[in-house]
Amino acid sequence: MTELYYEDLKVGQTFHSATYEMTAERIKAFAAEYDPQPFHLDEAQAKDSLFKGLAASGWHTAAVTMRLMIDSDLKLAGGSIGAGTEELRWPQPTRPGDVLRLEIAILEMRPSQSRPTLGIVKTRLTTSNQRGETLQISRPTLMVRRRPT
Amino acid sequence: MTELYYEDLKVGQTFHSATYEMTAERIKAFAAEYDPQPFHLDEAQAKDSLFKGLAASGWHTAAVTMRLMIDSDLKLAGGSIGAGTEELRWPQPTRPGDVLRLEIAILEMRPSQSRPTLGIVKTRLTTSNQRGETLQISRPTLMVRRRPT
Repeated sequence: MTELYYEDLKVGQTFHSATYEMTAERIKAFAAEYDPQPFHLDEAQAKDSLFKGLAASGWHTAAVTMRLMIDSDLKLAGGSIGAGTEELRWPQPTRPGDVLRLEIAILEMRPSQSRPTLGIVKTRLTTSNQRGETLQISRPTLMVRRRPT
Repeated sequence: MTELYYEDLKVGQTFHSATYEMTAERIKAFAAEYDPQPFHLDEAQAKDSLFKGLAASGWHTAAVTMRLMIDSDLKLAGGSIGAGTEELRWPQPTRPGDVLRLEIAILEMRPSQSRPTLGIVKTRLTTSNQRGETLQISRPTLMVRRRPT
């Protein structure tokens, strides 16, 4: 697939990803290292928590969303590099068996003032499961290479 | 350590964490699964990237920040549960050898309107390295149990 430069993008475009299955094993393995709390590690204890059942760490959903961005048709020259996100929300927990996919929408674009080789691209990422339920919304700003002249 | 309820917190309090070392191995292992891009996986290729050297995925820094929250003196009854963050920024990349630590500040508090057993607590998390350089700033909102009466 051809790599995309700033000049290849426009506001309103959308891009889509492959899928990633969140198994109970993956949920527990991530949690053991990064978010070791009972509701991410153990089905029985999770039942008595606010989640009422095993749930992935929100940061796991965020990490998988990054993976889906790499496995999407938005192939940026120089890679997908962000300096952060203006918003990051988990409207509902990711559960074992959820199959995640990502939609990327281009919201705003402008050339970088300080770095003439880069453009600043605001995006909205919507991570959903196989039932179309939204699991995460974020609005990262990407630094995208301008096409060399 | 005693678990803390909403009533034990107040605006302006700060809490602190243990530390977590970001080795090149950990950076590459996280990236292989969640952010497989050359500048997170390979020193030589990273030199030619915007990062000019191996750098952790920002989502790795975010995941470790969650881990440091668990390894902090903010031990919340019912656990650390958030619905997202209003902001998430990486002012500079996390590098191999960086030793991360976290400061948690309580910014705002209010009882939940819809769930009388919970309080809504806005926080600011500042993740720094051993030189005091800021690697991540976020402002997650936590759902904190109210003390049973």
